[in-house]
Amino acid sequence: MKTIAIDLGGTKVKMGVVSDGKVIASAKIEANSSRGFLPLKPEIEDICTKWMRIHSASGIGIAFPSLVDCERKQILGHNDKFNDCEGFDFEKWIHERFGLPMVLENDANAAALGEMGYGAALGCKDFVLMILGTGIGTAAVMDGRLIRGKHYQAGNLFGHIPQQGNGRSCAGCPGFGCIEAHASTWALKEIANESPLASPLKNEPVLNFKILKEYYDAGDPLAASIFEECCDSWRNCLIALIYAYDPEVVVLSGGVLNWGNELPERLFREVKKRVWTPWGKLQYRTTQNPEYSVLLGLHYLNQIQSEKE
Amino acid sequence: MKTIAIDLGGTKVKMGVVSDGKVIASAKIEANSSRGFLPLKPEIEDICTKWMRIHSASGIGIAFPSLVDCERKQILGHNDKFNDCEGFDFEKWIHERFGLPMVLENDANAAALGEMGYGAALGCKDFVLMILGTGIGTAAVMDGRLIRGKHYQAGNLFGHIPQQGNGRSCAGCPGFGCIEAHASTWALKEIANESPLASPLKNEPVLNFKILKEYYDAGDPLAASIFEECCDSWRNCLIALIYAYDPEVVVLSGGVLNWGNELPERLFREVKKRVWTPWGKLQYRTTQNPEYSVLLGLHYLNQIQSEKE
Repeated sequence: MKTIAIDLGGTKVKMGVVSDGKVIASAKIEANSSRGFLPLKPEIEDICTKWMRIHSASGIGIAFPSLVDCERKQILGHNDKFNDCEGFDFEKWIHERFGLPMVLENDANAAALGEMGYGAALGCKDFVLMILGTGIGTAAVMDGRLIRGKHYQAGNLFGHIPQQGNGRSCAGCPGFGCIEAHASTWALKEIANESPLASPLKNEPVLNFKILKEYYDAGDPLAASIFEECCDSWRNCLIALIYAYDPEVVVLSGGVLNWGNELPERLFREVKKRVWTPWGKLQYRTTQNPEYSVLLGLHYLNQIQSEKE
Repeated sequence: MKTIAIDLGGTKVKMGVVSDGKVIASAKIEANSSRGFLPLKPEIEDICTKWMRIHSASGIGIAFPSLVDCERKQILGHNDKFNDCEGFDFEKWIHERFGLPMVLENDANAAALGEMGYGAALGCKDFVLMILGTGIGTAAVMDGRLIRGKHYQAGNLFGHIPQQGNGRSCAGCPGFGCIEAHASTWALKEIANESPLASPLKNEPVLNFKILKEYYDAGDPLAASIFEECCDSWRNCLIALIYAYDPEVVVLSGGVLNWGNELPERLFREVKKRVWTPWGKLQYRTTQNPEYSVLLGLHYLNQIQSEKE
């Protein structure tokens, strides 16, 4: 069976056709998520229509970068991304436009299921996942079951745990000093501007980890300082996940991993130094294709749903 | 039925006879937990023996202030308190000395069960608990079940989530900047000494929240600054618990609540301001008797165990 998977990311919409746990076709669209979802709908429909002709997909999966009620297929909180999705009837849209069943899931939950089904957490029943994209996504599996919680928000908001008394205000929640506000793509430009360090980096009109890496490699002290602060924050996020869900395996995913091996090596080294697990040693893994975890998870969910029906 | 409950706290050992969810007799012993458990054993035995003569207890419950395997009845990590308990056979001791069945549990887990069975979380299936004693204990119940995790450490170590890049080193774990290292009884003396603020508080040979409150009430600026930092750290701990377990109710317990209403009011106000729960409003509760949550929970566990047998 095949799934058309749509990962609504804060920066890019990633789409793919997934068959037997492999992405066999893919596409990317600029997201401009602050402008909403509706402006992107025609282009997403065009790609789906094209793929429907070529591949006989049996379902469509959509991942959303904030809180999702996967049973009622509704957006619960938009987190300042794709605000017009609140109240939007995804199921009706997909059914009327393509005549297919669909699944809707939080992006980090989807990534966790993708890694459990086909990737870095294959065969693992207790693991946590942190996915570094535009923001920070988190999810956890305990005893083989995805943690969802009473209101579908358990495990997904670790990027919003406050770290500091008077930290940066957060674009995605009412909080201050959130991990995400100190260590994510959307916050990079402001973090750079607020630093007392001088650097040509401050003249970049847009900042992401790809650009930051270029400055970092050239020895820019501001880039080095930002990268260090990000690693500290991500480390704290991972330790919080470990203490919350008591996993065997820690999985790291997301486009920010294109930074290179230095990122997971440094991050995992720092976690290992500080985390307290008297039962033994955690395993630390990165995904093979950090851009595809979410797409794979949507396929996994589509498979589960079609088996139920 | 009646339970003899023993709460091995970092500062005091609290003991009680619990009947039908009420503490009908109680005793306190100085713990000096850094000297270990064995020096306290004779006194604990004397009190138990006395109570056995008066009350016909059907079981004994012991709560430990660190990680516990409640199935095998073993201590998993001592957290620098009662180090000699690692490997100690509690079940054998209780059986040989008193001929009674026993339960062993992490203190915060016991407190959560006590509040669920008889207290602030009565009838509640999704709640988190933070208990402020010598350290910070945390526990969570999701869908009516205590969260334990693959290695019995899920939910209990939120006091060890790091908050700051270069925070204080922790007495209880390999980490730095742990919430507990910035906001708990055991850390107060060092926190005071390290402050640049001048205060007679620094001359106190021992510090706890009772003494801190006296200085605070007298307008001491160092006491005010420490109390504020503690509230910030506790707030972060509660927000992390909420994001991890998606509860309906937040319960606060522990001897530090003797500070007075100002503490929970301030803390809950700060959490409400920052936490993101698009589904609706959390309920915030304090226990009626913050010193007894753990004892009640041991009784609850003893009842469950005796029903099984």
